[in-house]
Amino acid sequence: MENIFSDEYFMKKALQEAEMAFDKGEIPVGAIIVVENTVIARSHNLTELLRDVTAHAEMQAITAAANFLGGKYLIGCTLYVTIEPCQMCAGALYWSQISKIVYGASDDNRGFEKMGTQLHPRTTVVRGVLANEASELMKRFFAERRK
Amino acid sequence: MENIFSDEYFMKKALQEAEMAFDKGEIPVGAIIVVENTVIARSHNLTELLRDVTAHAEMQAITAAANFLGGKYLIGCTLYVTIEPCQMCAGALYWSQISKIVYGASDDNRGFEKMGTQLHPRTTVVRGVLANEASELMKRFFAERRK
Repeated sequence: MENIFSDEYFMKKALQEAEMAFDKGEIPVGAIIVVENTVIARSHNLTELLRDVTAHAEMQAITAAANFLGGKYLIGCTLYVTIEPCQMCAGALYWSQISKIVYGASDDNRGFEKMGTQLHPRTTVVRGVLANEASELMKRFFAERRK
Repeated sequence: MENIFSDEYFMKKALQEAEMAFDKGEIPVGAIIVVENTVIARSHNLTELLRDVTAHAEMQAITAAANFLGGKYLIGCTLYVTIEPCQMCAGALYWSQISKIVYGASDDNRGFEKMGTQLHPRTTVVRGVLANEASELMKRFFAERRK
């Protein structure tokens, strides 16, 4: 039997979150955190609404997942995020010791990989899952903002 | 007339916050944010109490200061923090465009300077203000934990 719980399956849920950010006029980034095929946190960027640079989708998801689990470490968890995390979010993921990070589109300007932010040595990274969908949403957002 | 509002003056207030963290069994790091010689945010590490890796003193101070100012950018503000910020906090400070960071003791293992985290190009950094006081508090904390 086919396993429906693929990385694409969960990334679609992160994309739904990104769409919700888009509808609020926020830079459209969405994130979810999954443990044993169960979504335990979902969030989207709220930096404009909250006027808070720390309100990235990933930061909120980390806090929500830790709250759900009753402990601050996210060992055994996977983060799905539509855009490559920044230095701040990668730094938070480092502290969380999260097991796996799956991201969609790369951020060649401010993504953690180019910036050289260090993750926990036991964290694995999967790149480019539904990257086109994530970057198309970003392009559409910035095209509408320029109008 | 002597200006009482020196970096040491404000760092003493950050050290008071670090002492409050110490008293709660938290790794003793304190932070304040100042604009035009007025303290607009004060906080200390709460990662254990909140079970949240994102609850560093600096992150809370950034959120509180933005809330006070009614905007997410901290241009014109100075952060005083007793220990060198980590990747996550430096990444948040990058987004905030804060004008000045003053820290006490260096963190040679996980501080942002060794890790290579990038700050905003207009942010200036002052190092080593009341560093002995800050590192003595840390040493005392870890000595007591080992007992």
